[in-house]
Amino acid sequence: MKLASLKAGGRDGTLVVVARDLSRAQAVPTIARTLQAALDDWATLAPQLEAVYATLNADPAAGAPFDPAQAASPLPRAYQWVDGSAYVNHVELVRKARGAEMPPSFWTDPLMYQGCSDGFLAPTDPIPAASEAWGVDFEAEIAVVTDDVPMGVSADAARGHIKLLMLVNDVSLRNLIPAELGKGFGFLQSKPASSFSPVAVTPDELGAAWDGGVVHRPLVTHLNGALFGQPDAGVDMTFDFPTLVAHAAKTRPLAAGSVVGSGTVSNKLDGGPGKPVTEGGVGYSCLAELRTVETITTGAPKTPFLRFGDRVRIELFDEAGASVFGAIDQQVVRYDGP
Amino acid sequence: MKLASLKAGGRDGTLVVVARDLSRAQAVPTIARTLQAALDDWATLAPQLEAVYATLNADPAAGAPFDPAQAASPLPRAYQWVDGSAYVNHVELVRKARGAEMPPSFWTDPLMYQGCSDGFLAPTDPIPAASEAWGVDFEAEIAVVTDDVPMGVSADAARGHIKLLMLVNDVSLRNLIPAELGKGFGFLQSKPASSFSPVAVTPDELGAAWDGGVVHRPLVTHLNGALFGQPDAGVDMTFDFPTLVAHAAKTRPLAAGSVVGSGTVSNKLDGGPGKPVTEGGVGYSCLAELRTVETITTGAPKTPFLRFGDRVRIELFDEAGASVFGAIDQQVVRYDGP
Repeated sequence: MKLASLKAGGRDGTLVVVARDLSRAQAVPTIARTLQAALDDWATLAPQLEAVYATLNADPAAGAPFDPAQAASPLPRAYQWVDGSAYVNHVELVRKARGAEMPPSFWTDPLMYQGCSDGFLAPTDPIPAASEAWGVDFEAEIAVVTDDVPMGVSADAARGHIKLLMLVNDVSLRNLIPAELGKGFGFLQSKPASSFSPVAVTPDELGAAWDGGVVHRPLVTHLNGALFGQPDAGVDMTFDFPTLVAHAAKTRPLAAGSVVGSGTVSNKLDGGPGKPVTEGGVGYSCLAELRTVETITTGAPKTPFLRFGDRVRIELFDEAGASVFGAIDQQVVRYDGP
Repeated sequence: MKLASLKAGGRDGTLVVVARDLSRAQAVPTIARTLQAALDDWATLAPQLEAVYATLNADPAAGAPFDPAQAASPLPRAYQWVDGSAYVNHVELVRKARGAEMPPSFWTDPLMYQGCSDGFLAPTDPIPAASEAWGVDFEAEIAVVTDDVPMGVSADAARGHIKLLMLVNDVSLRNLIPAELGKGFGFLQSKPASSFSPVAVTPDELGAAWDGGVVHRPLVTHLNGALFGQPDAGVDMTFDFPTLVAHAAKTRPLAAGSVVGSGTVSNKLDGGPGKPVTEGGVGYSCLAELRTVETITTGAPKTPFLRFGDRVRIELFDEAGASVFGAIDQQVVRYDGP
């Protein structure tokens, strides 16, 4: 099943069921007006939404055209967004570039931060920044949405609490990060609103590409129209999604609609830092990682962070080449203040 | 105006207007079913709620008895909870005890972390912990609730976006903090669900005790029935609430219903670390601070963290001795797993 939230209809938008090929959508006000409402009562409402989905796929005349530009993030605002760093390769690389050793525990104890969830950018909304000097970067990721997860859940039991998957652009302000992390309390100003793919999908939509813990497909990022990266999300993911959910729930329950991210998707190559697309590699899922590799290779980064007008597109395709989630497609714009 | 959310009525509870003396409450389903709904449309709905409040105060027969034990946190779940450390004295002390210098920038750049907001404990709910070895502690704080705050707001303009105030118990798992902060991404497992006072109040309810930025009243904490601390929230608050709101909104807007905390209220005494209540001082707002003072004074902490069965009560009184927000009153209990 595929679900989206149209911007129209208020702060939480309007829940629609989207056809598998993303061509059409159907509002479902008699079942649930918003995706959060559906998640709040998922066991009861999901089968009703699945019935609409079956009809929509079977009848090409059903529903109305689906325009991703009219879509908000599937959860336009959420009660929780936590983001792991499951591709530990990425963490090791970024630290290496600044000469910091990575503690061995990072391979067994997930890194995860509590992100802001009070308002996500829509998948085709601009990314506002007051200054290019902030070092605006994208991070292409995958995220899951849970129902109610009890405190202390095991990773095995967490698997059953994963109800939806989405793509993420975890917007990061690189030049604000060192000082902010140096204060010791994690990200706040350096991680502004993230955006998510137009469509959230139930795990079965991924077929064999979802093994219950990991998505085995390349995550494709384009920068200003050129391929930037297509690492396989199923490779080098040290902590799978159930492990990340269990980590988040160790000392407290997670409420329905909690969003748990993978961190930047990143693949090693022969144990090394991978290769840019321009050198025949699978590339990267953020500028910081390419800059890190440039630093390791040549002593200094040469690729700049995003500038006003730059455009990032993040998408994931099935084996037949069809877009599973629709595309995150955003342009960085200057913000002149309130 | 005073507002609360009764637990009955679903995940967001039922919004009620509460009489000034906390004796009675009135549901307002034709105005707003939940506090979040009221905050989503505050400019329109607040005057209607104020009218109910006036009637409730004028007519002793209006409304039904208000029982804080039936109250959820005013926002049972919220889209955002960020917590500052505005009483920099507290930060300096805690660092001193572990031999860490505090950077001078901490006096000019607020420390703030993104907390979990997907489910707050009710004001009289137990605090579940799987182990006393987690080092369970309370932190008595004050928080404000905003309407929609634009990105890049000035501290001056942020003042007008503060719509409600509440008390907070920012539950902290002290023994999980060093390792988690050591990973560099801030709190996650070490800051489980917080709880808030039964009642949220508009700033005017504080009269002269609210100067537009700071609450000038003692915040009173009892531990197992004995006075533990009563530092004045208006003393030694280095960053006032508008400054904290502006800090949170530097790189992104804050959605209506965002909760911004003060951090643990803490007073110096003659430039020093204050004194415990048992020695005639105003005491502290968390065990960690008392333990820090014990460490500085005697070389080691002697007060243990909370044990199963321990009870914490946090309250704030007006000059006439009336409780403004009702009491947070919670007992730590053993959690045996899902």
